[in-house]
Amino acid sequence: MSRVFRLTISCPDRIGIIAKVAGFIAELGGTIVEANHHSEIDDEWFFMRHEILAESLNNDLASFKTKFAPLAETFNMDWQLNDSGKPKKIALFASKESHCLADLLYRWHEKDLPAEISCVIANHDDLRSMVEWYKVPFYHVPVPSEDKTNAFTKSEEIAASYNVDMVVLARYMQILPPNICREYAGRVINIHHSFLPSFVGAKPYHQAHTRGVKLIGATCHYVTEELDAGPIIEQEVIRVNHAKSIEDLKRLGRDIEKITLSRGLRFHLEDRVLIHGNKTVVFDN
Amino acid sequence: MSRVFRLTISCPDRIGIIAKVAGFIAELGGTIVEANHHSEIDDEWFFMRHEILAESLNNDLASFKTKFAPLAETFNMDWQLNDSGKPKKIALFASKESHCLADLLYRWHEKDLPAEISCVIANHDDLRSMVEWYKVPFYHVPVPSEDKTNAFTKSEEIAASYNVDMVVLARYMQILPPNICREYAGRVINIHHSFLPSFVGAKPYHQAHTRGVKLIGATCHYVTEELDAGPIIEQEVIRVNHAKSIEDLKRLGRDIEKITLSRGLRFHLEDRVLIHGNKTVVFDN
Amino acid sequence: MSRVFRLTISCPDRIGIIAKVAGFIAELGGTIVEANHHSEIDDEWFFMRHEILAESLNNDLASFKTKFAPLAETFNMDWQLNDSGKPKKIALFASKESHCLADLLYRWHEKDLPAEISCVIANHDDLRSMVEWYKVPFYHVPVPSEDKTNAFTKSEEIAASYNVDMVVLARYMQILPPNICREYAGRVINIHHSFLPSFVGAKPYHQAHTRGVKLIGATCHYVTEELDAGPIIEQEVIRVNHAKSIEDLKRLGRDIEKITLSRGLRFHLEDRVLIHGNKTVVFDN
Amino acid sequence: MSRVFRLTISCPDRIGIIAKVAGFIAELGGTIVEANHHSEIDDEWFFMRHEILAESLNNDLASFKTKFAPLAETFNMDWQLNDSGKPKKIALFASKESHCLADLLYRWHEKDLPAEISCVIANHDDLRSMVEWYKVPFYHVPVPSEDKTNAFTKSEEIAASYNVDMVVLARYMQILPPNICREYAGRVINIHHSFLPSFVGAKPYHQAHTRGVKLIGATCHYVTEELDAGPIIEQEVIRVNHAKSIEDLKRLGRDIEKITLSRGLRFHLEDRVLIHGNKTVVFDN
Repeated sequence: MSRVFRLTISCPDRIGIIAKVAGFIAELGGTIVEANHHSEIDDEWFFMRHEILAESLNNDLASFKTKFAPLAETFNMDWQLNDSGKPKKIALFASKESHCLADLLYRWHEKDLPAEISCVIANHDDLRSMVEWYKVPFYHVPVPSEDKTNAFTKSEEIAASYNVDMVVLARYMQILPPNICREYAGRVINIHHSFLPSFVGAKPYHQAHTRGVKLIGATCHYVTEELDAGPIIEQEVIRVNHAKSIEDLKRLGRDIEKITLSRGLRFHLEDRVLIHGNKTVVFDN
Repeated sequence: MSRVFRLTISCPDRIGIIAKVAGFIAELGGTIVEANHHSEIDDEWFFMRHEILAESLNNDLASFKTKFAPLAETFNMDWQLNDSGKPKKIALFASKESHCLADLLYRWHEKDLPAEISCVIANHDDLRSMVEWYKVPFYHVPVPSEDKTNAFTKSEEIAASYNVDMVVLARYMQILPPNICREYAGRVINIHHSFLPSFVGAKPYHQAHTRGVKLIGATCHYVTEELDAGPIIEQEVIRVNHAKSIEDLKRLGRDIEKITLSRGLRFHLEDRVLIHGNKTVVFDN
Repeated sequence: MSRVFRLTISCPDRIGIIAKVAGFIAELGGTIVEANHHSEIDDEWFFMRHEILAESLNNDLASFKTKFAPLAETFNMDWQLNDSGKPKKIALFASKESHCLADLLYRWHEKDLPAEISCVIANHDDLRSMVEWYKVPFYHVPVPSEDKTNAFTKSEEIAASYNVDMVVLARYMQILPPNICREYAGRVINIHHSFLPSFVGAKPYHQAHTRGVKLIGATCHYVTEELDAGPIIEQEVIRVNHAKSIEDLKRLGRDIEKITLSRGLRFHLEDRVLIHGNKTVVFDN
Repeated sequence: MSRVFRLTISCPDRIGIIAKVAGFIAELGGTIVEANHHSEIDDEWFFMRHEILAESLNNDLASFKTKFAPLAETFNMDWQLNDSGKPKKIALFASKESHCLADLLYRWHEKDLPAEISCVIANHDDLRSMVEWYKVPFYHVPVPSEDKTNAFTKSEEIAASYNVDMVVLARYMQILPPNICREYAGRVINIHHSFLPSFVGAKPYHQAHTRGVKLIGATCHYVTEELDAGPIIEQEVIRVNHAKSIEDLKRLGRDIEKITLSRGLRFHLEDRVLIHGNKTVVFDN
C-alpha cells in the first residue's frame, strides 16, 4: 500500500465543488487514487473523499492544509486531511468475552488493520494473558455497579495518556456515561449483537430467540448518548432456524460480530465514514 | 413430483414417538420420502413431518387417518394428514401494487406453486386486466375508511364461496379485523416490507431510510390480531447504502418481498410450517 | 427521476483528468448528481462516469458533445454521452422458458426498467400470448439445427428493423454466430445459469448437481465469440444442499437468474458498465 | 451441551429402516435429540443420523454397538457410533499463512470447536510462537521440493504418534501424496480459496481477478488423490468489484476461508457429514 493523504469533505451542495477541489489537487501535482462523491438530495448536502498519492504531491500535510483552507472556507466545508502513514491510535475496551478483542488484535498483529492499538482496558482480568502475548498494555479497571463514575474516569485517563484517537468497544458490556460520549463524539465505535433497530439493549440473542426471527444480525455503530441509537456504519446477518438454541445463536453471532466490527472499524480507520446527522455516508470502494 | 401424503405432528416429547410413527407407516407399506423432527427443549415439545409416497400405501387418506387416530390419541398429538394431490385453495388479497400478486400468479401459471388460486380480491380495480389474463376471478371490493366492516365481510364471503383453505395478503395494505384473524388463524399469510421486528406498521422503507440501516428486509408471517407481530415464516435482506433513495429502497425491496413471500408461502403449502406459540418450526429440507 | 445526461469516459490515466472534466461540466452550469471514478493500476487506465442534471445545463446533448470533443481528444478518451430521456431500445431473444422474459416484461411494464422493449424474437411460439398481453411485437423465428444461419440472419434483420440498441438473451438457449457477436459487441447481454467460470455450456444445473456444490449461481455477462467467456457484469448465488434434486436447483435457480439478469441489464441501461478487456467496471452507486 | 451418542448410517433404501432403527433406540430407552434422514432417489440409497442422549441409554457405547450389529447387518448398513464425550483428535497442517490456523486454535481454546487439537505440523517455523501460546505441540517439518517424500512420511509419523483421527490442512499449500490421501480417506479436510470447481490449483485469487468475477469464494472439502476435486462439505462467497485489487481479494477471502473451514470442520467433528461417492450429505440441523 502506497502512502496516501485522505481528504474528506462535507458541505452545502453547490455547482463546481468537484471541479474546484480536483483542480486544487491537480495544481499540487496530486495523483488521485480514489475519489468518491455523494449528494444528499433531501438537505442539499455534499460529501466527497479523495485518496491522493503522498509521493505525487510536492507538499507535505501541513502545507497542503494551509493552501486548502481558503478554498474550504469559500464552500463552508467541514473537512479533514489525514495521512495513511499516521494510523489512528485505538484504545480497546473489553470485558470477559474475547472474540471481538482477539479478532482485532490478530488482524492488527498481521498488519491487516491500519491502526495502532495503544492499550486494552477491561473491566475483568480474564483476557490479560491473551493481550499480553500481543505485547499490548492491558489495564484491568473494574466497573462496580455502585460506583461506575470513578471507573469510567480512570479508563478515560488511561486512554488519554496514550493520546488515542478513538475508542472501540469490543463487547465492553457497559454503557458509557454521557460526558465520554460527548467528548469522543464520532470516535467511539461499538458492536451491538443484533440487527438494529431490532433488539436494542440487553440480551439481544434471547430477544431474537423469543421472537423467532429467521436471520440474526450484528451492527457496528458510533456511540451516542442514546443507547444503541447512534449512526450505523455496517451491518451483517446470518440465517438461523427453529433448531438453533440461544447458545447456537451466540456462537453463530460471534462470527458476524467479529466481521461486522472489523469491517466497520476499517471504514473508520481509512476515513471512509462521514457522519451526517444520525446517519453515515460510507465510501466503500 | 410423485404424489405424497404429508403427516405433520406436534405433541409433548416422549421416548418412542419416532419409532411408533415410523412403525405405523412401515406397517402400511409406506415409503418415506422425507422425514424431519425437532425437539423443543424449553417446553419439551416434539414436532415431526413425514412425506410418504401415496402409491406405496395400501390405504387411502381416510383409511390412513382412521387407523392413525388411536396412536395420535395415545401421544396427545396435534396432527394433520394432507394429500399433495389436493393442493390448497388460496384467496389472494391485493391492493394497487402488483409485484407480489404478479409474482404469485406467474409462479402458479408455470405450475411452480403447488396451490390452486381461487380468486383475487382487491380494494382497487387497477390489477383486473393482469389477473384476468390468468383467467382467475377478480373481485373489486373497495374498503372505504368510513366503513371497513362491510368490505371485510363481503371479502370474506367471496373467499368462503370458493371454500378457500387460506388467504394470502399480497401487499393488501389493510389491517384485517380481529374476527377474520381468529377465523383464519394460522391460515392468513402476509408479507411485511421490513425485517421484523424492526419497522412495524406503515412506511417501513421510510423508517429504514431515516434510521440509516445498511440492509433492508422483508418478512413473511402469519397474521394475528396484533399488527405485524405474528409467527415469522421466512425473512430475507438485501444490502443498501447511503446513496439509495427511498424510491431505490422500494425498488430493491420489491425483489426480496416477492421472493420471501413465495418462499414462505411454499413452505406453508407443502405443510412444512408448524406453528408453536408465536414461533414457527419450518422443516425446509 | 429527473432527466440526466450520462457521461462515461475511459482513457489512459493522467493527472488532472477529474479536474478538467469537472471543470468543463461546471462551466456549462451542470449539476453533478452522481460521479464515479476508477483507476486501474495494472495498465494505468482511468474510468469515470458522471450523471449531470439535464435541466441544469445550458446546452443540449449535441452541443455538449461538440464542446467536449476537443477535451476528449486531448486525453485520448473513449467516451459516450447518453440522455436518460432516450432509453435504450432492446430486442429480447427467448426460447421456451418464460421466467427471464416474463420478469423483464413485467419490470418494463411497471416502468421499473429504464428501457424500451421493441420486440421479442423467439425460436418457439410458446410465449406469444404472454408477450402480446404486453402489446410487444412477437416474432417466431425457428432455429432448425440443420440451418441456423438463415434463422440468425432473419432475427438480426427483425432487430435491425426496430433500430435496437442492444440484444438481451433471456434464456435463448442458442449460440449466436460470430458475426452477430462482433456486430453487437458490448451490446448483447446473456444470462448463464451457473456461477461462471464454473459449469460453462449446457445443463449447468446437472453439472452442479453432479459436483455436489453447496451454492448455485447465475451470471449476467456480455456475449463474445467464446462461449460463456465474455465480460461478467453481475453474479449471484443461492444456497442448496444434498436434498435438492436437479428440479429443485432449476426452480431455485430461476429466481437468481431473473434477479441477476435484471440487475446486470439495469447497470447497462444506465450506462454504469464500462468494458475493459474481458472485464467490466460497474459503477453501481 | 449434554453428552450424546451419534449414530450415522448409510445403506440401500428399503421400507421400514427408520422404524427399525427408531424402535431399537426406543427399546434401549434412548432419548433422540436430533434425527435426520435423506433418501437419494438416483441410486436408492438411504442416509440417517441420530443424536441420542447418552444418559438416557441404559447401555454404554460398546454394548450399544454389539446389540445394534445384527440390525445393521440385515440392512447392509455402513454405520458409525460416536460419543460426543470423546472428541476427535486433529493434526493441523500449516505453512506460513496464519489466518486459518489461528482461527481454529482460537475456537478450540474457547471450547467452541468440539475437538482435541493434538499437534501442529508446519513446513515453515513462522507460526511456532502463536501455536505454543496455546500450549499445542508444534513441529517444523520442512518440505523441500527436491525430496518431499521424506517430509510427508515424517509428518505422517508425527500425526500417527498422537493417534489422531483426522488431518486438517489449514492453508498447508502442499499437495499430499496419494498414499496419505488413501490412508486418511474421508479424514483429511482442506480449505481451498476459491468457489470450486472454479479456479482449481494455484493462485485462485489471481485467477478470479483475471476473470473479473463479482463474487469470490472458499470451499471446504475432503482431500482425494485428484487435486481440489474431493467431496465438497461447505462453501461460502463474498461480493467484490472492479475496485478490489488482488491484495483486497486475499484480505476479503481470508474471512470466508476461516468461516468456511471452521463450519465444514464442525460438521465433520459432529459426524454430520456422510460421504456418498464424490458428494456429501450434510445434516446441518
